[in-house]
Amino acid sequence: MLAPRQATTLYLGAPDLIRLVQRRGLSACIAGVAERIEAGFRRWHEFDKSARVASHSEVGVIELMPIADAAHYAFKYVNGHPANTRDGLPTVMAFGVLADVATGAPRLLAELTLTTAIRTAAMSALAARHLARAGSRTMALIGNGAQSEFQAIAFRDLVGVRELRLYDCDPAATAKLRANLADAGLALTVCASAAEAARGADIVTTVTADKAHATIVTPEMLAPGLHLNAVGGDCPGKTELHRGVLEAASVFVEYEPQTRVEGDIQQMPADFPVTEFWRVLAGAHPGRAHPDEVTIFDSVGFALEDWAAL
Amino acid sequence: MLAPRQATTLYLGAPDLIRLVQRRGLSACIAGVAERIEAGFRRWHEFDKSARVASHSEVGVIELMPIADAAHYAFKYVNGHPANTRDGLPTVMAFGVLADVATGAPRLLAELTLTTAIRTAAMSALAARHLARAGSRTMALIGNGAQSEFQAIAFRDLVGVRELRLYDCDPAATAKLRANLADAGLALTVCASAAEAARGADIVTTVTADKAHATIVTPEMLAPGLHLNAVGGDCPGKTELHRGVLEAASVFVEYEPQTRVEGDIQQMPADFPVTEFWRVLAGAHPGRAHPDEVTIFDSVGFALEDWAAL
Repeated sequence: MLAPRQATTLYLGAPDLIRLVQRRGLSACIAGVAERIEAGFRRWHEFDKSARVASHSEVGVIELMPIADAAHYAFKYVNGHPANTRDGLPTVMAFGVLADVATGAPRLLAELTLTTAIRTAAMSALAARHLARAGSRTMALIGNGAQSEFQAIAFRDLVGVRELRLYDCDPAATAKLRANLADAGLALTVCASAAEAARGADIVTTVTADKAHATIVTPEMLAPGLHLNAVGGDCPGKTELHRGVLEAASVFVEYEPQTRVEGDIQQMPADFPVTEFWRVLAGAHPGRAHPDEVTIFDSVGFALEDWAAL
Repeated sequence: MLAPRQATTLYLGAPDLIRLVQRRGLSACIAGVAERIEAGFRRWHEFDKSARVASHSEVGVIELMPIADAAHYAFKYVNGHPANTRDGLPTVMAFGVLADVATGAPRLLAELTLTTAIRTAAMSALAARHLARAGSRTMALIGNGAQSEFQAIAFRDLVGVRELRLYDCDPAATAKLRANLADAGLALTVCASAAEAARGADIVTTVTADKAHATIVTPEMLAPGLHLNAVGGDCPGKTELHRGVLEAASVFVEYEPQTRVEGDIQQMPADFPVTEFWRVLAGAHPGRAHPDEVTIFDSVGFALEDWAAL
């Protein structure tokens, strides 16, 4: 029987990743990943991109997200099961593989639950740095689950946010986030509604988890010059923004073919205008056109971000 | 920082799998996997199927193959890099994951290089059992690399093949296969060409590895009643059969949308008639219509087979 020589694969489990992040510090990791993502987006055309392959069930979704450049192939496995918290399991679990394009040999297999949280926050902050008004200091954080803490740190470090206005339909989530951010050097205000949280904010970040067409943000909540970082609407049937919000704004996306299916723009006609964010980085699109424009980053998570993180 | 509770994932590396197969015996493993594949194909409609996602480079391909039923989600990572043997690496490396649809938790991560070889041979033999003429005893084995040994054992055990006619453009590959099969209870004849190997054979199995449009089997080689098991033509740009061979035969495939792109039928127009093999198992198609018909199983490898193996 065959026992072929094996390529060596490095395996990094969840405890390894947590130790790695603890040693380097969460801030440094977010900044490092943001830098890699930015470098990746700047050479957008060198990547063999495809929309993720999703397998949907009644209770959740399991997805594969592949991407490659000339040297490295990567993919991520990730699920989304909102009811998992009831059983003490994470809503999102993920792992990824980095392989050599030249030989197909898998070189690194890494647990990515923590890394997904880091790269999502890094991507959001990177987009906001280019799309939000200069001098944005106040952010509404609507949806106070696991991802919101990473968003808070990323926007503090990379965008200069100093004040957070928190709201979640579950007050316990807000209380936990507030406790976790107690020493983060951020002014925290707990709000009674999404509308109250958005009031006076330069940036509104939505990271709600329900798999449903929700309208967390409605047109009345839009102030001139607002930047909206829509993170939670990221699969078919799952949206956070009222369509009037999308109509009133300039919408930026990671990878258009994927976001048309998964993002908040899934509600809009196929010709609804959007701009891929790499064009802003490449200087092919000016990004925010004037201080009163409402900008939206309709984030769904793109394989290039995981590639960069790996 | 978050340290979410982890789901437990069982990890089976290549040495574990080799030990497992050695303990159970290769014959028993092939038979067991064939049984699981047959059971899976019989409930074809319960699966959420999709064509694999392939990332091609100049030297090879890396693919992801996902599938799910109501309870279990599985995917396989597999590459194909013919030149790897030059560097002492396997041409094909693979691993797979089995996850719970209900929670998205990955439960099993297993090296699948050996398992891929087993399930490919099991699938070929299962198809031949239903498509080859009753009483088929002689098989030509064209292409004598790693997979051919598994094909030999599977056809011996599941189809009743007793004589092999071997040919490879590399005589060293044939010599190695012959040595490996010395105690397999099979009569072995080494042939000087593919045409010579096919002469008098009830079944012709092609398992060549070159990533090119090759014509290993030409129309002159077809005898009435032949069953052709075409294993090596399994990705875009890689075929083994002359188009006249396909035109002269009844062609059976695993999953039509995938085989149209990857199989030998990629050479044919989009309306070239083929039959999905599950229909034969389900009694919806008679399979071989008469003893003189030439049948072809245009095998590319389908995710359901890996699901069954996992």
